[in-house]
Amino acid sequence: MNRIADIITTIKPPDSEAMEQARARQQQLTKPPGSLGRLEDLAVRIVGMTGQLLPTVERKAVIVMAADHGVTIEGVSAYPSVVTAQMVYNFLRGGAAINALAKLAGARVIVVDVGVVTEVQHSDLLTRKVAAGTANMASGPAMTHAQAIDAVHVGMDVFEAQFDQGIDLVATGDMGIGNTTASSAITAVLTGTPVAVVTGRGTGINDEQLAHKIAVIEQAIKHNKPDPTDPLSVLASVGGLEIAGLVGVILAAAAHRVPVVIDGFISGAAALVAVKLCPGVRDYLIAGHVSVELGHLMILDHLGLVPLLNLELRLGEGTGAALAMCIVEGALRTHAEMATFAEARVSNKEM
Amino acid sequence: MNRIADIITTIKPPDSEAMEQARARQQQLTKPPGSLGRLEDLAVRIVGMTGQLLPTVERKAVIVMAADHGVTIEGVSAYPSVVTAQMVYNFLRGGAAINALAKLAGARVIVVDVGVVTEVQHSDLLTRKVAAGTANMASGPAMTHAQAIDAVHVGMDVFEAQFDQGIDLVATGDMGIGNTTASSAITAVLTGTPVAVVTGRGTGINDEQLAHKIAVIEQAIKHNKPDPTDPLSVLASVGGLEIAGLVGVILAAAAHRVPVVIDGFISGAAALVAVKLCPGVRDYLIAGHVSVELGHLMILDHLGLVPLLNLELRLGEGTGAALAMCIVEGALRTHAEMATFAEARVSNKEM
Repeated sequence: MNRIADIITTIKPPDSEAMEQARARQQQLTKPPGSLGRLEDLAVRIVGMTGQLLPTVERKAVIVMAADHGVTIEGVSAYPSVVTAQMVYNFLRGGAAINALAKLAGARVIVVDVGVVTEVQHSDLLTRKVAAGTANMASGPAMTHAQAIDAVHVGMDVFEAQFDQGIDLVATGDMGIGNTTASSAITAVLTGTPVAVVTGRGTGINDEQLAHKIAVIEQAIKHNKPDPTDPLSVLASVGGLEIAGLVGVILAAAAHRVPVVIDGFISGAAALVAVKLCPGVRDYLIAGHVSVELGHLMILDHLGLVPLLNLELRLGEGTGAALAMCIVEGALRTHAEMATFAEARVSNKEM
Repeated sequence: MNRIADIITTIKPPDSEAMEQARARQQQLTKPPGSLGRLEDLAVRIVGMTGQLLPTVERKAVIVMAADHGVTIEGVSAYPSVVTAQMVYNFLRGGAAINALAKLAGARVIVVDVGVVTEVQHSDLLTRKVAAGTANMASGPAMTHAQAIDAVHVGMDVFEAQFDQGIDLVATGDMGIGNTTASSAITAVLTGTPVAVVTGRGTGINDEQLAHKIAVIEQAIKHNKPDPTDPLSVLASVGGLEIAGLVGVILAAAAHRVPVVIDGFISGAAALVAVKLCPGVRDYLIAGHVSVELGHLMILDHLGLVPLLNLELRLGEGTGAALAMCIVEGALRTHAEMATFAEARVSNKEM
């Protein structure tokens, strides 16, 4: 816990003076003021996060945390657990959606095994297995407190290593059959919303299975009684190892003033835990998209974040965040590359 | 008119057999079916447009049509007419928003003077001036019928030249002080919506100026009595030369089965005219974004198109379309590059 507490103390508010300069620059660029809409706000926010007047995003990474969930034994998912490991191989061989979209965004894909049940071996995989999947939250805590903290540390370490290599923008991604169940549980507890409201069909279950999934989550919360004021205990009792890993990525990125593009529901649950641990983290978050999973919208509303994209995605892996990286880059390129009225000798508004 | 009638006869419906194959492929890619949401639908549509099973979008262009509007003499815009030419120079020197966003999308920017009042000279400019701006639509037709047709021909020619160079995806863009006034007039007449509903603040006018703008448009429609069943007469009497040019681009792109990403309100008005001329054009249109200008949303609703982005843009130039090109590329890259369940040896859904 000390390392988590330590990193939180280093998270600073955005640079308001730099943001003021960014707003002034936006007024001078050759366009009607405000006409680039949310791109302008985004550029100003990122100037504040980074403290750089003309931030660039040449070095990008999507960090995909993978782990398994003991709760899958309850039959909450449309796919078997073994798919987690199979998809990790798919990421490493470049055949998944996140590979295609990260390539589009010019981002490297970092795949981390923080708790996959099956042994996965690949030279490009970061193997940081805290446990071989979580325990079944329906009959006990998903993780011990120590495991949850270890997994957060894994995320911090993985981000720090990327930071040492150079990184301007990071996106969060996840893989873990059963992880919408954990995300719904976290969201219900930390936002105080009924389980049924924040629970969706995940990879594609039917009405009956959805009712069962809701019952399993309610049972898990009833059994573990997580304390909503203690985000780490919520994470440990009803969370997931990959979600904990992403909490670490988010905390470390905020501490290093690197903007974080949040993907969908699972990444959103991690962001929620991170903001509950340290409200200042919110200023470093960019909501990449809003997922079809209703719980994700509840998280974004709770955090006061407006998503950049709404393309009805529900895949995870970091796919929505990778696509949103293109929008972020557009915001920063217009901010940095456009001529001012004076430079271009364009007449400004008459009135 | 003969060339326009001729090209319309060559516009074919999408390839439904290829679309069926694309849908089948999407079901086999390593993701839960439907989990890439609108990206899946977009990929299937583009397969239908192009007739290619794995379409690529390496060669992209944003065609920016620029022209002036006689109606600016009525004081309908926040900027003076001279800004049209100044911004054309800005495009040619690479200092505008569209330059930054087209670079992001990997698209070339083609700037066409189809009717700028000021003489603009630059080696990269396509000078196809049909007239030195339109006439004031408040006191007579903006263009003669012959001018409107000439401007449509310019757009067709410009697209054909790009097609000969090689083009997989085209975006429409515009520059013309006063052109939201013309777009509102077109939209009101062709969708049968009251002028006040489809008229907005353009580059940024106040309440009083907005009321005046609405009155000017109502006066123009009353004076010219455009026939809603004759799209070219509407275009001639209350349109603009750059809008007519974009109509030509859209018709020619559809004829050559090249997907067209439509930008904001002005491009939308051109798309509306093109679809009224030939309903089959609609199948080749991708709505890049929805503008802050309410008239744009009315057009999209009328055409049954759902925008990819909603970032509160209201700049034009092709900016929203250029950003949306990244989403289009994401849809096609996932469609083409992802492994199938069989290829990746990933277990498919259990139920």
